[in-house]
Amino acid sequence: MTTVLKLGGSVITHKEHERRLATDRLAVVARTLERHAEADLVVIIGGGSFGHPPAERHGISTDIGSTDPGAIAEVHAAMLDLVTSVVDHLIDAGVSAIAFHPLSFARRDGTQLTLSLDAVAAAISEGFVPVIHGDGVLTTGEGVTILSGDDLVVQCAQEFDAVRVGLCTDVPGVLDAEGAVIERITGYNEVASMLGDSEMTDVTGGMAAKVETLLSLKRQASVFDLDGLDRFLDGGQPGTSIVPTD
Amino acid sequence: MTTVLKLGGSVITHKEHERRLATDRLAVVARTLERHAEADLVVIIGGGSFGHPPAERHGISTDIGSTDPGAIAEVHAAMLDLVTSVVDHLIDAGVSAIAFHPLSFARRDGTQLTLSLDAVAAAISEGFVPVIHGDGVLTTGEGVTILSGDDLVVQCAQEFDAVRVGLCTDVPGVLDAEGAVIERITGYNEVASMLGDSEMTDVTGGMAAKVETLLSLKRQASVFDLDGLDRFLDGGQPGTSIVPTD
Repeated sequence: MTTVLKLGGSVITHKEHERRLATDRLAVVARTLERHAEADLVVIIGGGSFGHPPAERHGISTDIGSTDPGAIAEVHAAMLDLVTSVVDHLIDAGVSAIAFHPLSFARRDGTQLTLSLDAVAAAISEGFVPVIHGDGVLTTGEGVTILSGDDLVVQCAQEFDAVRVGLCTDVPGVLDAEGAVIERITGYNEVASMLGDSEMTDVTGGMAAKVETLLSLKRQASVFDLDGLDRFLDGGQPGTSIVPTD
Repeated sequence: MTTVLKLGGSVITHKEHERRLATDRLAVVARTLERHAEADLVVIIGGGSFGHPPAERHGISTDIGSTDPGAIAEVHAAMLDLVTSVVDHLIDAGVSAIAFHPLSFARRDGTQLTLSLDAVAAAISEGFVPVIHGDGVLTTGEGVTILSGDDLVVQCAQEFDAVRVGLCTDVPGVLDAEGAVIERITGYNEVASMLGDSEMTDVTGGMAAKVETLLSLKRQASVFDLDGLDRFLDGGQPGTSIVPTD
């Protein structure tokens, strides 16, 4: 009964300042996760102001790779820094967190992403909460491309057959053209026009892409902000529920 | 035609000072590897004064595990620190190095160690030199135990069907009772008594254990110090050659 929870980069970092942790929000996350210590949880974190700036500087994206070892090391080091801080905060709050680094266990060949999740599964079996971060990924013919947190959500939800998927973001849900939270989305067409107008984008895909991805998962998913995290982990449906009907 | 090269912790760190890099020796290593950039190489690094002290403080060993996430994170962070520095030195010298973290892709069940080496293999295919470090490893029923560099040597030599295995240590080879380098070892019995007298031990097994392990690999192996590294990478046999005959 695994739950996959993504903590967006905009939740745990200050997006406007490179490599600045949002320690207040991270403390809230840590306390909330600790209250749900019984949950069988896989946590995924986005790059926020740690991973994105060096990736952009070096022109590395989810599509365009790099063979420059210095560039690859810089992106990876930034994400090691972030995940180490996040895991330290979680541990301080009483969560048995362990960091996992996808550059070490993922590979991409064209559009095919493969994760070797043996160690992550072992961590769950041993009672730990794996924390996996956006990272570089070895990619056939490209060197290293960027593996986004959203791609990790998709793959982990499928591989662990997650019963619930949660995206904790900096907005209270998927918003309509008037800025109100859409409570329930069952198909992409019903919201496409609204999302097209939205300004919510980041380096690895805006909200429209997130909704499309979550719908493709064919499992119950929620998009919410930090205020909704406790309710989500409690089994509730804060923010926007994404419930594919087909 | 893969070569597995282990850089002992006593080569790249100052064993007597916790978390102190041996930058002079590391610079020699980096320049030497750069001169052999054409080699199909897997580099493995020991923990030295980075990984061993926190592991000892928390009572974690290759046999005894820990479920304390703080202890696990501390050992892992020390090794992230070491491998990041080593990789940075290699990159600065012109080697296309990428760090790999076994806590993310290894698991142990009893005496059975399993490494998911897909990403490491992809790195080699893409022209990079993987640098894998001693680390924690998820272990069934134990939480996390220590995965030594020597265990990584064995597993990687087998998985990549290495043609040559080199152990770069702080001694010029396997020494006899008089401190002279033994040129050639073809079986354990011929050296057992000499190695029993030796004082060369470290946390994850002394020289006797290393020789026994290398013999069990059934492939050409060498034990040498930093002065022998260039000759080894050139295809020569510095220090002690370990050539199993059966």
